[in-house]
Amino acid sequence: MIVEVIAVGTELLYGQTVNTNAAAIGSRLAAAGLEHQYSSMVGDHLGRMVAAIKLAMSRSDAVIVTGGLGPTQDDITREAIAEATGRNLVFSEAYAERLRRWWASRGRAMPDSNLKQAEHPEGSDLLENPKGTAPAIRLDLGDTLIYAVPGVPPELESLLDLHLIPDLRKRSDERVVLNRILRTYGESESRLGEALADVYSDGNPSMAFLATAAEIKIRLTAKADSLEEAEALVAPMELAVRERLGGLIFGTDDETVEKIIMDLALVKGWTLGTAESATGGMVASRITATPGASDFFVGSIVAYDKRIKRDVLGVPDALIAEHGVVSEPVAIAMADGAAAVLGCDVAISVTGSAGPDPQDKPVGTMVIGVHTPERTMARTVSLPGDRERIRAYTTTGALHLARRAMLGEWWQGKPQSGRWI
Amino acid sequence: MIVEVIAVGTELLYGQTVNTNAAAIGSRLAAAGLEHQYSSMVGDHLGRMVAAIKLAMSRSDAVIVTGGLGPTQDDITREAIAEATGRNLVFSEAYAERLRRWWASRGRAMPDSNLKQAEHPEGSDLLENPKGTAPAIRLDLGDTLIYAVPGVPPELESLLDLHLIPDLRKRSDERVVLNRILRTYGESESRLGEALADVYSDGNPSMAFLATAAEIKIRLTAKADSLEEAEALVAPMELAVRERLGGLIFGTDDETVEKIIMDLALVKGWTLGTAESATGGMVASRITATPGASDFFVGSIVAYDKRIKRDVLGVPDALIAEHGVVSEPVAIAMADGAAAVLGCDVAISVTGSAGPDPQDKPVGTMVIGVHTPERTMARTVSLPGDRERIRAYTTTGALHLARRAMLGEWWQGKPQSGRWI
Repeated sequence: MIVEVIAVGTELLYGQTVNTNAAAIGSRLAAAGLEHQYSSMVGDHLGRMVAAIKLAMSRSDAVIVTGGLGPTQDDITREAIAEATGRNLVFSEAYAERLRRWWASRGRAMPDSNLKQAEHPEGSDLLENPKGTAPAIRLDLGDTLIYAVPGVPPELESLLDLHLIPDLRKRSDERVVLNRILRTYGESESRLGEALADVYSDGNPSMAFLATAAEIKIRLTAKADSLEEAEALVAPMELAVRERLGGLIFGTDDETVEKIIMDLALVKGWTLGTAESATGGMVASRITATPGASDFFVGSIVAYDKRIKRDVLGVPDALIAEHGVVSEPVAIAMADGAAAVLGCDVAISVTGSAGPDPQDKPVGTMVIGVHTPERTMARTVSLPGDRERIRAYTTTGALHLARRAMLGEWWQGKPQSGRWI
Repeated sequence: MIVEVIAVGTELLYGQTVNTNAAAIGSRLAAAGLEHQYSSMVGDHLGRMVAAIKLAMSRSDAVIVTGGLGPTQDDITREAIAEATGRNLVFSEAYAERLRRWWASRGRAMPDSNLKQAEHPEGSDLLENPKGTAPAIRLDLGDTLIYAVPGVPPELESLLDLHLIPDLRKRSDERVVLNRILRTYGESESRLGEALADVYSDGNPSMAFLATAAEIKIRLTAKADSLEEAEALVAPMELAVRERLGGLIFGTDDETVEKIIMDLALVKGWTLGTAESATGGMVASRITATPGASDFFVGSIVAYDKRIKRDVLGVPDALIAEHGVVSEPVAIAMADGAAAVLGCDVAISVTGSAGPDPQDKPVGTMVIGVHTPERTMARTVSLPGDRERIRAYTTTGALHLARRAMLGEWWQGKPQSGRWI
């Protein structure tokens, strides 16, 4: 069962919207063990949409078209599927009635334009959308299955989980795809590639490298008839990777650095807070994005202005005057100050010059501090790139330094050659 | 000049990485007035990469392949372009020498695997990459132009700006595409569509609706031989939209709500801070993502724990006991407390129950407060969806309530029917 995805919308082609839906669908296809070979984007243009749907029908067993089901005039996915499959559009009075009830239950009159959402290609089913008004559409042509799903992310995601994935799973040959992710931090992709040259394979199991902001994931994939067989294929490769990389691997599968920090805090009974300048709350946002953060995370002081560093965190003016606001002594004072003001056991601090204009030190100079009940230390890093990249890499770096400090792995001297932190 | 994009990487198909590169390329193509009809993703699989490149060559004038140029074994974009165009790979000793110098200048020895990055299809040019080791490749076949660019976002972006876009622009017929974005907040897509039914067109100029987290952008596009002609096409449509939507439009083109808040703060000479609970620093992160934020943004208290609300923000225990931590009186006390502690003129506060487990009030109950030198008010909203969606919509809502309060547009009573804030 090969599944193909077509995301519709001129805004995707011209970059006004990032195609996160493709990733939401793709990760579910992977988890369900379904093959996924092509994903494409096409504008709101009938001729090109029809061509894209026909091409997908010719090379895949199932096609998911997302977007273009809204109530406005540029929403023409229904028309494109009808034309690509040579069918008429029909109107579902039953669904129209359901739409009227949906709006009535919210105390609102339905705009007439929404009636368009009760239209569908002849012979197709309408799948109820629990989070919105546009139903999904399923057209079963025997050798090919076509779905149309709204492009609004929460609607798409719930329709995938409720209808499409179970449906596709039932029709597939149930071959299992197992993905094992080994998460590394601190070494370049090329060094990792060399260290693993003799283990690398693009067969079954296969290995791939995924570089994201300062972390590199190594994905091992096996396909087999059962989960047990897939595990047996992956196990020796995983062992070999672990032997070669050792402590560079910090987590497995969905063990993000945030989750590891949460686990460490709960095991040690430590509470955590942050004091952020250049990252402006990004470290706290990342930590609190994880459900359950309130069990150990107490809060943060975003000390963007020097005055807040002094008045709220208690960083002495003299320290700033002597070393500059972007310096290790100030990062240490910020971390210690946050621990005192917030009354927490672990405090992460960030001060830096994120650009575009330099602040105290050259753009890209970022200092991270970590306070634990054991000690407080800071580390200076120098990052290339623009403001967004510098802030993102620093946020990830701050989480990793905190993870290491919470494990008692305090750093010494400069980073090793080839490692940036 | 029709440009097509192929993003390479199995991690894109299986959703481990979101294809932000397609948006980075697309927005630059739009700004340069270049046509962009198809964008696709394909896995690290030689046969399918070759097929995707051949298909793109058959229907577009220029093809940008991104990703698969790294030093590891799964990076096979060079091979795929060579095979799709029937050419051999050749080795550039000159580029190899440049690679060795790049590593040497950083005090590091080059891993041998990086020599792969000096290989390229016969007859192609290597374009220097100022931010990394893999050069971009340009292969000019006369009727089709193929580029291969590294997938690391900052490297891709600088290569686009330095080489690809100027190159494509020079070869195109210089027809101008003008996009005008009218940013709205507070009304549903279907209502906007109905209000604009008589203005809508998919011709030239055309109209499209782009729904993102709680904001809906209306994009007007015109194509013409000059910017003046394109402006003349867009102007009457823009006027008609503005007449019908009035105050629902809050910004034009790149005037985000963050930028408007910054402009208002600078004009009024006001400083700004936040006090955040459920959003955990996201409002502060959004504001400080804009360069220049340090001119008016002083900082934030992320008061995740009740104790921080009391000890740092001075929210009385009795108030929390009487109304609950997720309540308008507490949001007002948090905003007033932040203004006092941070010493700022405007303070935005957020308290709420973001889930997955309810906190004080049902999941999705979010309260936003805004303090200005005029007054302090709060508003309660009830949001559907999961933790991530609730936090994102609340962050956007908090910025819009702050914008309105800073303009003196204080809200009264409940939101109007059909509007959520």
